[in-house]
This record gives sequence, C-alpha cells and structure tokens, in this order.
Amino acid sequence: MTRADGRADDELRPVKLTRHWQDHPAGSVLVEFGRTRVLCAASASVGVPRWRKGSGLGWVTAEYAMLPSATNTRSDRESVKGRIGGRTHEISRLVGRSLRAVVDYAALGENTIVLDCDVLQADGGTRTAAITGAYVALADAVAHLKAEGALAGDPLTGSVAAISVGVIDGVPRLDLPYEEDVRAETDMNVVMTGAGTFVEVQGTAEGAPFDRAELDALLGLAEQGCAELTRLQQQALSS
Amino acid sequence: MTRADGRADDELRPVKLTRHWQDHPAGSVLVEFGRTRVLCAASASVGVPRWRKGSGLGWVTAEYAMLPSATNTRSDRESVKGRIGGRTHEISRLVGRSLRAVVDYAALGENTIVLDCDVLQADGGTRTAAITGAYVALADAVAHLKAEGALAGDPLTGSVAAISVGVIDGVPRLDLPYEEDVRAETDMNVVMTGAGTFVEVQGTAEGAPFDRAELDALLGLAEQGCAELTRLQQQALSS
Amino acid sequence: MTRADGRADDELRPVKLTRHWQDHPAGSVLVEFGRTRVLCAASASVGVPRWRKGSGLGWVTAEYAMLPSATNTRSDRESVKGRIGGRTHEISRLVGRSLRAVVDYAALGENTIVLDCDVLQADGGTRTAAITGAYVALADAVAHLKAEGALAGDPLTGSVAAISVGVIDGVPRLDLPYEEDVRAETDMNVVMTGAGTFVEVQGTAEGAPFDRAELDALLGLAEQGCAELTRLQQQALSS
Amino acid sequence: MTRADGRADDELRPVKLTRHWQDHPAGSVLVEFGRTRVLCAASASVGVPRWRKGSGLGWVTAEYAMLPSATNTRSDRESVKGRIGGRTHEISRLVGRSLRAVVDYAALGENTIVLDCDVLQADGGTRTAAITGAYVALADAVAHLKAEGALAGDPLTGSVAAISVGVIDGVPRLDLPYEEDVRAETDMNVVMTGAGTFVEVQGTAEGAPFDRAELDALLGLAEQGCAELTRLQQQALSS
Amino acid sequence: MTRADGRADDELRPVKLTRHWQDHPAGSVLVEFGRTRVLCAASASVGVPRWRKGSGLGWVTAEYAMLPSATNTRSDRESVKGRIGGRTHEISRLVGRSLRAVVDYAALGENTIVLDCDVLQADGGTRTAAITGAYVALADAVAHLKAEGALAGDPLTGSVAAISVGVIDGVPRLDLPYEEDVRAETDMNVVMTGAGTFVEVQGTAEGAPFDRAELDALLGLAEQGCAELTRLQQQALSS
Amino acid sequence: MTRADGRADDELRPVKLTRHWQDHPAGSVLVEFGRTRVLCAASASVGVPRWRKGSGLGWVTAEYAMLPSATNTRSDRESVKGRIGGRTHEISRLVGRSLRAVVDYAALGENTIVLDCDVLQADGGTRTAAITGAYVALADAVAHLKAEGALAGDPLTGSVAAISVGVIDGVPRLDLPYEEDVRAETDMNVVMTGAGTFVEVQGTAEGAPFDRAELDALLGLAEQGCAELTRLQQQALSS
Repeated sequence: MTRADGRADDELRPVKLTRHWQDHPAGSVLVEFGRTRVLCAASASVGVPRWRKGSGLGWVTAEYAMLPSATNTRSDRESVKGRIGGRTHEISRLVGRSLRAVVDYAALGENTIVLDCDVLQADGGTRTAAITGAYVALADAVAHLKAEGALAGDPLTGSVAAISVGVIDGVPRLDLPYEEDVRAETDMNVVMTGAGTFVEVQGTAEGAPFDRAELDALLGLAEQGCAELTRLQQQALSS
Repeated sequence: MTRADGRADDELRPVKLTRHWQDHPAGSVLVEFGRTRVLCAASASVGVPRWRKGSGLGWVTAEYAMLPSATNTRSDRESVKGRIGGRTHEISRLVGRSLRAVVDYAALGENTIVLDCDVLQADGGTRTAAITGAYVALADAVAHLKAEGALAGDPLTGSVAAISVGVIDGVPRLDLPYEEDVRAETDMNVVMTGAGTFVEVQGTAEGAPFDRAELDALLGLAEQGCAELTRLQQQALSS
Repeated sequence: MTRADGRADDELRPVKLTRHWQDHPAGSVLVEFGRTRVLCAASASVGVPRWRKGSGLGWVTAEYAMLPSATNTRSDRESVKGRIGGRTHEISRLVGRSLRAVVDYAALGENTIVLDCDVLQADGGTRTAAITGAYVALADAVAHLKAEGALAGDPLTGSVAAISVGVIDGVPRLDLPYEEDVRAETDMNVVMTGAGTFVEVQGTAEGAPFDRAELDALLGLAEQGCAELTRLQQQALSS
Repeated sequence: MTRADGRADDELRPVKLTRHWQDHPAGSVLVEFGRTRVLCAASASVGVPRWRKGSGLGWVTAEYAMLPSATNTRSDRESVKGRIGGRTHEISRLVGRSLRAVVDYAALGENTIVLDCDVLQADGGTRTAAITGAYVALADAVAHLKAEGALAGDPLTGSVAAISVGVIDGVPRLDLPYEEDVRAETDMNVVMTGAGTFVEVQGTAEGAPFDRAELDALLGLAEQGCAELTRLQQQALSS
Repeated sequence: MTRADGRADDELRPVKLTRHWQDHPAGSVLVEFGRTRVLCAASASVGVPRWRKGSGLGWVTAEYAMLPSATNTRSDRESVKGRIGGRTHEISRLVGRSLRAVVDYAALGENTIVLDCDVLQADGGTRTAAITGAYVALADAVAHLKAEGALAGDPLTGSVAAISVGVIDGVPRLDLPYEEDVRAETDMNVVMTGAGTFVEVQGTAEGAPFDRAELDALLGLAEQGCAELTRLQQQALSS
Repeated sequence: MTRADGRADDELRPVKLTRHWQDHPAGSVLVEFGRTRVLCAASASVGVPRWRKGSGLGWVTAEYAMLPSATNTRSDRESVKGRIGGRTHEISRLVGRSLRAVVDYAALGENTIVLDCDVLQADGGTRTAAITGAYVALADAVAHLKAEGALAGDPLTGSVAAISVGVIDGVPRLDLPYEEDVRAETDMNVVMTGAGTFVEVQGTAEGAPFDRAELDALLGLAEQGCAELTRLQQQALSS
C-alpha cells in the first residue's frame, strides 16, 4: 500500500517558502506544502489593542481565511454570509496561539504584528502550512522592525513549525493531502518549536477512537516532520 | 505543595450528575465538577438537516454557551453582541464531535438530537463537564426514543467522558479549577470512551512549550480521570 | 370549572425564592412560580454607561433570555441567529423599567447593576417571575454594596413584584401557567410596588376585545396577587 | 394651568387622514396628529408565510420605523446599525397585534397584508397615530381586494383606533405631544375598537407609581379619545 | 414614436421643490420628478467624525433609502434584513460625493451635515431627484448655520443637480420614468454643477453596448436637463 | 513632466495574464497591471439561483474582495467586521455587470458562473484589472464547459476589458497607479468590448469638476487602452 503521490509514509510533500511575495507587509511569505498554497503576511504597526495599552508589552495575533476558489467546490465568502464560521475562528486562534509561544512581548515593545494567512489553494494541511509560513513572515517582520530601530531586544525566543499526521487504513502517515485527510481514521495537528518541544497537540478520532500506541506513533512522526520543517525555515531565512 | 482545595494531584473534584433536571427535553442533566455547573439538555426531534435528508442516517450536534452571570466578572451576552465568539464556536464543535464518536447514525434513523450545554456557573473545566454530562443526557434521550418505539437498534456504541489535566508549578494535575487553570503552564483536555480509547486530545502550551515526558504524564493522568468519570456516569444511569 | 392544577381562580402557584444560587454575582436568586424557573442575577460594577458619566447617578438595566431547552419544543438560540427577537427585547425592557421604578439613582451613585434573568424552565409567567425574583437579587446586590461601603444612602425606595392575570372561558384567573396562557381571551401582566401602586399595566386581547368590567376584575386580582408576592419577597429577604 | 398648544385636557390635537397618498400600495394613508405625521401603507399580496400555508387563513403584520430626520435630533438608521432596536420591535408588534384584533383570517383567505408605518415627523403619539392610520389603510386595501374579487367574505370585524393619555403635573391629559410626553409621570397607550371595547392597554409609571384612581381617570379619557378617532376614521372612509 | 406621458424626448417631467417640509432638520425639501418623490433632509451638528477631528475642516455625507411601500411591489426593509444592499450603498456614496463637490470644508469649519434622502415614492430617477433636492436642503442648512453665526465663510462653492438620460428604442431621451428605465438599452446618470461642468458621469449598457456617438448625444441631453434643474433650484431658493 | 515610472501618458503598465493559476476552478487567471495583482477565478456549477429556475437561462455574477495585506496599510477583513463595505459592493456589481454584457444566457443554459476577483496586491486600477482578467477566466470556464458537452451554443458574444484614465496636474493619463490615483483631479473607469463599444463609463471629479473637452480626451485615451488590452487577452487565450 503506497500513497497516491508516491511518497513514503514518513515523507513530507515538497515544501516551498517564497519570501517577499508582496510589497506592502513587513513580512510576506507564500508557503506551499505540495499543492496547498497559503499566503502569509506579517503586518506591523505601532501601538497595541486598548486592553494592553501602557503595559510596555507588544501583541501578536492571526487571521486565517480561504479564498472561495481555493477549494474543490467553490465555498461561500464569510464576508458575504456576514459571519465567520467555527472552523475559521478555531484555526485563526490556533495560528495566533502557536506564534505567540515564541514571542517575548517585552522585547517587542508596544508594537502589534498581525499575521494574515490566506489560503490561495487548499489540498489538506492548510493550518499547518499557515503556521509554518507565518513563522517565516514573522521573522522577516521582526528583522524589518529591528532594521528600523523600532525594537530594543529580540522578540523571538525560538521558531515554530506545524505538521499534520494521521492514520489511514491503519497506517500512520505524515503530512496528509486532502484525499488522505478525508479518509483518515485519526487526524492530528502538531505544532512544535525548533527546539523540539510541543506548543500544541490536537488529535481527533474521525472514525474509530484511537489507542495510546497509535497516539505515540503519530507523535513520533510529527516530531520528525517538524524537525525537517524547522530546517527548511532556517534555510529560507538564511538565503 | 498541596492544592488549594486539599485534593491530591490525581484526584477529581466532587462530581455530581443530576438527571431529569428539566421537564421538557428528552434528556436533561445538571453536571457539577466542584463549583462548575453545566446544564446539559438533549432535545430529540424527528427529521435531519437538509443535507442529510433521505440518507436514513440521524444527526447529533451540540451548542455550548455560558450565562453572563456564570463567570467571576459578568460577561456580555453573545446574542446581544450579535455574534458567537471563537471560544464558544470551538467548544460547541468539540462537544458535538465528541458525542458523535459513540453514535451509530444508522441505528438512530432520521432523527436529530441537539445537545445544549449551558454553563450556569464556571470554575474551570466547563467543556469537560459539558461532554461528561451531555453523554448522560444523550443516553436518557436515546432511552426515551427507544421507549417510544422510535428506534430500530441501539445508536450508542459506547460512552464518552472528558477531563482537563495540566502542569502547575512543574507538577501534573487532574481536573483544574479556574485558579489552577489560569496558572497552568500546559493545559490539556482529553476526551475518552468508556473502553479507554481516545476521542480527542487537545494540549496547549500556555507558558513554556512542553516536552514528550510531560505530555506522557498528562495523558496518563487523563486516562485515570476518564475511567473514574465513566464509572460515575454508569452509576448515575443505573440509579 | 376548576383549574387543571386544582388551584382556586385567585390563587398563586407555589412560589419559591432561593437566594445565593450562584457564587459570582452580588445577588443571585432562583425564582420558581410552579414549574416556571428563572435564574435572576444582579451583577454590580463600578461606573456607568458613557451617556451618564459625571452625573453622579447610577444605572440599572436588565436582560431577559431563555435557554433553548426551557420550552416545550426546543427553541433556537438568539446568539446563533445573530439577532435578538422582538419578544426578548420587549421583556428585557419591561424588567429594566420595572426595577428602575424603585431605584434612587443618586443614592446608588455611579454604579451599574445589570439584572440577568435567564429562564431555565418555562411554564407561563416567565416575565412576572423574572421581575419578582430580580427584585430580591437587586436587594441582595444593594446590601452587598452597602456592606462594602460603596453606597452613601439607600438606593431602594420600595419593592416591586409582578403577576399575570387573564380571562379563561370567561373567568378571571390569577397566575396563568402555559396551558391557561395559550387559551386566555385576555392576558394581562401587572407590575406593582410593595406599597400597592402600579408600575406597569399591560393588557392584551388575545381573543375578543374586553370591556371595562373585565379590565376592572383583572386589576383587582392582580392587586391581590402582587400583595401576596410582596409578602413572600420580604419573608425571603429576612431569612 | 393650560396646555402649551391651548387645548383642553380632554381634547385631541387636530387629526388629518389623507387617503391614497402613494400610488403603489393597495392602501396608503398619511395620518397627522398635530405635527406628528405617519405614512401608513397596506401592501397586499397573494400567499401567506410558510408556517400558515394550506390553512386557508390569511395573515396581517406590521412594521414601524422612523426616518432619521423625523426627530428633534437626527437619529441613526437601524439599517446602517444592522439591527432593529427594542423600541422599534415593540411598536411593530403592538401595531400588528392591534390590527389583527379586527381581522377574520378565514374571510381574508390565503392573502397577506403588510402594514408599513413610517414616521415622517415625530411629535409624540407616533404609535397611536400609526394604529389609527393603519386601520384606514387596511380598510382601503380590503376594499381593493374585494373589488378585485379576491375575497369571499368581509375580513374586517370592526375598526381600531388608539390614543395616548398621561398624567402631567398631576392632571390627566389626552393625546400628549412630545413636550408633554417627556414630562408625564404616567404614560398610557390605549387601543380600542369602534365598538368601545379594549384591544390593548399599556400603562407605565415614568415617574412615581400611580394608584387605581389615576388609572381609572386615564382609561376614561382614552375611551373618549378613541370614540372621537373612530368617528374621524369613518368620516375619512366615507368621503 | 412619442413618450407615454406625452413629453418631448428632451423634456423634463414636472419638477417640484417644496422647502421646509419637516420641522426638525436645518434643511428639508420634498423633491418631485413627476411621480417620483424624495424627502431630502439636511441635519447639521457640531463636530466631525473622529478621523477628521482637529483638522478645522467640516464633513458632508449622505444616506439614501427607500420606504418599503415606495416601489411597485413592496420591497423588504434593509433594517429587518440586517444589512444594506449594494444598490443602496452605491447611491448613498454617489449622493455624498456629488454634494461634496461644491463644499469648501474650511469654510464649513468642524461641522457635519448629513443628507438623508428617503424615497417616498419611486418612479425612476430617484438618485438624480435625491441629488437635486439634497442640494436645496443643503443650501437651506448652510443658510441656517450662517444665520446662527456658526460659519466664518461660505461653504458652498456652487450648486449641483443631476438627471438621468437613456436610449430607448434607439432614441436618446431625458429624465426616464420607471417604465422607460426598464426598457432602456443604455442608461446614464449625470451630475453637473450650476456652472455647467461635470461632477459625475455614470453610463451603463443595459442591453447592447453603445458607441461614442450615442454617448455624445446622451451627454448633450444631460447638459440641457441639468441647466434647467439649476434654474428651478435657484427659483426655489429665492422664493 | 514625466510619470514616476517613466511611462508615456498614453501607455499601459506592463500587463501579464497567467492562466490556470489554480487547480480547482474551471477558469483561473492571475492578472497583473504593473504591481497590481488580482486572482480571477471562474467557478462553474449546474443550476441557477431560485428566481431564474426553469427559465432555460444561465447566470453570471461576480464577487470582488481584497486581502488585508494587499494595501499599503493593512485593511480590516470584511468577514471580521461582519459586513461588506460600500466600495466592495459597488465594484462587485460593476464587475458582474461588465461580464454579463457579453454573455448570451440562453446559450449558457441553466448553468451559473461565479467570478471571484481577489486582489492579492493593490497599486491602483484593481477594478479594471479584475474585469480584464475575469474575462479571460470566464473564457476558460466556457471552454471547459464546452469540452464537457455542457453547452449547446457559444455563450460569449464578445470580449470585455477595462482601464482607468485620469487627469493629473491637468494632463490626461492612461492606467493610473496608486500614487497617481490619489492625486487625480478626475478619475474615470471605462469598460469596453473587443468591438470597441462602451459597456460602462464611470467618471468622477475628485478635485475640481471637469468640462466636456477633458471628458472627451479621457474617453479617447480609454478607447486606445482597451484596444490594447483586448489584443493582450486574445494573445493570452491563444497561447
């Protein structure tokens, strides 16, 4: 039993990180996990939300969205529906939380960075691609602020990357494309730091509940995938 | 270092499951985890959402909400704000997914059960109390439908319960009340079946990222807590 | 012709006022008129809405809502629909107006008290139970503020209670449960002070229009019912 | 103590009912109570709302609104705010209920009549002017449907009119303009049929609560005012 | 081929401008283009929107809306739908832009004028009638502010008027009523100053695209129509 | 006086049309006018909106939106604000109308094509780029439907392209980038068919009103620009 795209079970799809894709934001990265394409922009502005004013601390938040044309069948715009769906809310919160795990707010000072992750094409793993790309955009935005002399210290305490893992036909696999994702019995998204510690673990039994052994196997695969993504992020940032 | 309420680190708060709390819904359970109180109602109706009509399959969904007066400081009503917040969306989806993990849609037939989980008082762990109580309400609703001859088979393939675990001051603890929850470095919610398998694992580094050893310790605590909750659910249902 | 629950035409249902039902709000009362159960919370906070700042005057407002599971057939959540219905608006306004009738804003000072009336179970008369219970919660909140030394004088100039009356099959009756409410030709809600004066009179011809004699008979019944509720409020507050 | 506009305490402002003010609706009446001007349109359409289909019964409903420029100080548009306020909801419901009190749904057949009451200029008593004018528009719409042969019987079982009464400086007065309305201790709106029976009584203590004697005096004034309005409606319809 | 209402192809419908139609706004004009009737109110207030504070400059904005009963078939209220439609947005923006073209913000000082254009009856050309009437209301409001000594200089640098033109059955025509508007191959709205220069040109091919010659003919007709409207505005303002 | 980017006054920016940019929609084109980049997707589906069912006619509509990161300063998401702004509404309507001008609904049959125009980077002229790119995406979608045998005839009766023109410092110029757009006294968007006829002309005086001679000069420039865009569209579609 091999995968439709010929990959090994523990192999990532081709990953591409294109920096400076847009002119305006302080950081802008087009991240590709196979056919999944997410545009990650890091917009920096002076000041923080009202509840944080005068604290001397910065803020980082994220918004995730999908173009209507990104999916197999066109999906309706949330702006037209007049409300944001549960899935969008959930992923926006996950991305924000993940990036904040490596931010030192005091070193950022009273600046805000908004991470916009817009899915241009969806083929599974959009939230993990978003986190992985958003980190690179954030690093570029931080470098930009530093170059402008807007920061005292270094607000990044590490890096983050994320990957999906799942059990398909009883076999644990890394980095699921859409056609595997819909067939997965168990689906897990794991966010890790470059130092190999966990920021977020979200596992869901889509079919039958899973046991501790499966959970352990999936965590192992994810550790390996995130380590590889960390290497690719560093390579992109140093080029 | 002991806990403020005198519990051992691996001890649940007093759990109370009061069935038939309301007259109207097919199942209605007031669940208490210490001072946390959630009213779980299971309302059954003939028919399914439009996208499922004619499939012969049933549907189970959930809505979670909090009274404004349930929290330490009064929180604004989402109905007044005109939109549901991200946290509410996220928990409603989690509760629904958790319960659906033990439902056989074909045995349910074209019936819908809505699980309303309304937090009357919040002291940490509202989502895990909601899942644990909602299962009992669902079981009552299913029994009610069976008694009415509305079901062919048994739509429940097992039971589910949920508990929170976290690391506070370096120590893994079971079932966090609010004052521990806000101080937790790592916070994890685990949903398990009565058979001891996992339905959902959601772990978040609130402070420093966590390593694999901490993750393993938390999973162990959660397994123990869910087993105890399963016993209490069975006891409540057989009384 | 006797009533389904055996009461005399001028008899209230069993009324129960349970104080301190919740831990967090300054006042919290579970009020029961027969099977109707409303949780009334009085949350106090320093400060007033913007349009009242600097006036030295306080503010009291109310929000009424129903749990989806409170009614015979499950009702949809207004937060999910994204808008508050006309009936909810109307009752919230009535409850707020009724309580404000016995409040001295200058004695309250620039504090705000929000009265949340959440119907946990509905069997007719939810708005009158809400007003009757909210008064007790308000009295508790005021006592709490006084004990804290937050008030100069006494912001309560009296008490309020409310009852429904109606004509069923030509007979005027006091305190209608749901099954009488839907059959009533005329339906009236009356809010009175403990001193026996009127705060609000709202009478509606549900079936045939009513004449002056019927109106007079209903007002007489309501006066009697509110006097009895006033006695029960005083008894609850002195226990 | 005389009134600012020189009227006797039991005297209506000049009332004007201009029929056929608009070309399109089946009935269209501009009603004026002094400087208060409300445009009442009755739009008829074949069919009824979904929940009433197949019943053989018709439906009558109302929507009340105010132009931003109608009030002393410009008020914001509810369409721009994206939600209808409580006051608007409350009055729309009152107008609908009042008109439905004289409608025989079976004689109307499966037709719907929507009564739009748009306040062009506000000087107190807009809701009572709306009800009084809407009745004339409804009568015109019914006549129009009859002329078209769309009705079997007569769907109007009577007429309705409405007036405000209030206590100002201890004196009961009829038909309050804005400057009296804001000073009223007690404010009551009364809806009556042409036969002299009550459809709706809504009395509110704006200042001190009122006693039974004041209530009786106000009801007497309202009976007299509604009788006069009924005469003016008949006169307008027969011209 | 003559027009249904007997007009020549280059002839306006009877135009009527009734000033001081309402009591409250600083300017209030009922404008009629044949059976099209729009109530234009200019409400002045001290202060400007937040983004303009401290600039010393004033602001002028407009809101266009239609009564549900204004159209052939009743249209739903945007306040009830909870959102403003694209057409309403578009016309509100056009009216605001058109009037701002003749406003000197410095002479207006930090005052805001809101132009409310509410269509009471629609028979084609509602946006051009709105602009034409709004100018007169604006002039009245400016005169009112001047009389109050609230202005230093003259904030009006000229006048504006607007007219629709279109090609019907191959013939260019001026000022289209509804029945011509729906049949027009090309439909153009032109806003001009009293000095004969263009503020806005919006032409749309409803049927077949149009060529340069047709465009030129339509512009010529519009120039003529706007000149006539300018004359009528001056006449109304000097009466 | 030359342009900042060295172009002649009647010269387009470099235009690039990249077809098949996305995998899922029937047509997908990335259009670039200089640094302005718009992703145009044409999604085809069987069936038409309810009001058109059974007519045998197809439907084409458009939605325009901007990524938050597309602009100079980050703009808020309309989905988060819960409502679509006037500018978005206006442009979506313009794009839809423009494309519909070359569609034969009968030949399209009861199919719907939605044109999503998402601005990935904004540097002036986003609406004209959107129309120009959307035509190519529409042509690809139509070819796709034809290849599938879903169409009887040819639903495209021609092509459309659009360009902006404006007067800057008294000089008429073609295809304005952002920095020229904000300085333009007059700004015009023109939509033309490949046959050289006009579909839409929208001219606005941003500064001083313009005279007929300026209007004529701008129309001439636009005719020239649209002709060149038509040539580039044909070239892209034949490659």
